[in-house]
Amino acid sequence: MADSEDIMKHLIETHEANPPPNPIYYSFLVPNLRGFENAFHILEPLQVAKNASDTTDELAHPNIELAVFASATEAFSQKNLNCSVAESLQRFDQIIGKAKQAKVRIRAYISVVLGCPYEGYDVNPHRVAEIAASLLESGADEIALGDTTGMGTVPRTATLLNTMKSAGIRMEDLAMHFHDTYGQALVNTAVSLEHGIRTFDASIAGLGGCPFSPGATGNVGTEDMVYFLEGLGMDTGVDLNGLADVGEWITEELDVPNASRVGKAWLGRRKLSESQMREQGA
Amino acid sequence: MADSEDIMKHLIETHEANPPPNPIYYSFLVPNLRGFENAFHILEPLQVAKNASDTTDELAHPNIELAVFASATEAFSQKNLNCSVAESLQRFDQIIGKAKQAKVRIRAYISVVLGCPYEGYDVNPHRVAEIAASLLESGADEIALGDTTGMGTVPRTATLLNTMKSAGIRMEDLAMHFHDTYGQALVNTAVSLEHGIRTFDASIAGLGGCPFSPGATGNVGTEDMVYFLEGLGMDTGVDLNGLADVGEWITEELDVPNASRVGKAWLGRRKLSESQMREQGA
Repeated sequence: MADSEDIMKHLIETHEANPPPNPIYYSFLVPNLRGFENAFHILEPLQVAKNASDTTDELAHPNIELAVFASATEAFSQKNLNCSVAESLQRFDQIIGKAKQAKVRIRAYISVVLGCPYEGYDVNPHRVAEIAASLLESGADEIALGDTTGMGTVPRTATLLNTMKSAGIRMEDLAMHFHDTYGQALVNTAVSLEHGIRTFDASIAGLGGCPFSPGATGNVGTEDMVYFLEGLGMDTGVDLNGLADVGEWITEELDVPNASRVGKAWLGRRKLSESQMREQGA
Repeated sequence: MADSEDIMKHLIETHEANPPPNPIYYSFLVPNLRGFENAFHILEPLQVAKNASDTTDELAHPNIELAVFASATEAFSQKNLNCSVAESLQRFDQIIGKAKQAKVRIRAYISVVLGCPYEGYDVNPHRVAEIAASLLESGADEIALGDTTGMGTVPRTATLLNTMKSAGIRMEDLAMHFHDTYGQALVNTAVSLEHGIRTFDASIAGLGGCPFSPGATGNVGTEDMVYFLEGLGMDTGVDLNGLADVGEWITEELDVPNASRVGKAWLGRRKLSESQMREQGA
């Protein structure tokens, strides 16, 4: 966690001096109260240094968010957090309360909402809605529904979102977090768009994964998500050329394969057109 | 082509003696009249041996189809077939006529319908509809619309299919042939399903590719397609377990990576549960 604290310090110092044009959040996972206190240890003196007024709703750190992660199933909660879902919600209630008091944005993940490595496909969507409602009542700014195993299908994603709606949860409070393990991330994104969701997680070059699913791939690639959304006529504000470059760079640094289909194809096509231009120039 | 003829002979001898329970076609590309005559040289004596009656519509070889491939753009037609689109349609008219006469099923591909490596994204859907109509008039049993470059997006796939409908082409005469180069094969399949298409090409472990697009991946994996369709509640009649095994076997034989996300994840999960069972047994 020392590394994570160093990164947090560096980002705050860099970005709060020169705020980026688009709203970018750097998200830090706080698994427990101790994690929160470590993070807070960094955030609090900076906040004082900025003389943030106690009477405004303005965020103390507009580019930082803290994140807690609950689980949709008891088995995954025990494996991942070593406690029951109910115990984790109590713990998060404390952390979320402290974060709101400190005017720090806080996101709450719910893992394995569409399939659990221990309990299988049939995760109860009503239970997911209850957990989401509890986290929102605690004060979470956003709920990210995680298809951690990538087991989600189109009909089950639709059922989950309909259940959330029936439970009174607003689509603008939700983000979808799809893993592309079974290649279903974009079809599930399409269904979520139809339900009014507009926030989607992705990772460059499809980095990441799930330690509990051998052979599994990571989050859907940011390149694939951007290509898909732009193809639908949406403006993501992201430059696919630059994104593909970063994907190539980071996978070389980490010595892992580039898991983004769009990233690989985009780079391949660009290399082809560059070599054609060289041939024509020669 | 000698190999291809040997395979054709073997398949005919094996399968016409013991017909498979489901309709399975073995497809053989016939690029020109000479290719057709080579294929026909094998098919014709077998037909005579079977004493196929001249007066029935029954296929002489129910598990064999021949295939011609046209192109949606002039540039791709010149590169691939060394002639204009119009010239290729004349050539195919002859081949299709002879195939129908011999009571052999014939499929016609149209390549690069949603993006051409030489002419770019904007392939004219009206031109695709004209080419399809011409091939159907020649007697083709089915038209496979090939997104050879994988450049298709949801709105452009919808526009293409709407244009086909407006031109009077029936959805049941079409098959979609998506490459997953940009990871859009399944979202484009979803749109095609909504338009009434029910025939989709795929390749096991995502084998194949397009020699004209460096960095490109092959067809969408059969495993991914089956998982997606079954997830929608459709009955594909395909056993995903067996499919994943074949994908693992063939990629090992060919020493290429398994490009099917579902194939890899399915095998990974199966290995995990096998090792858990062993642990419990021990």
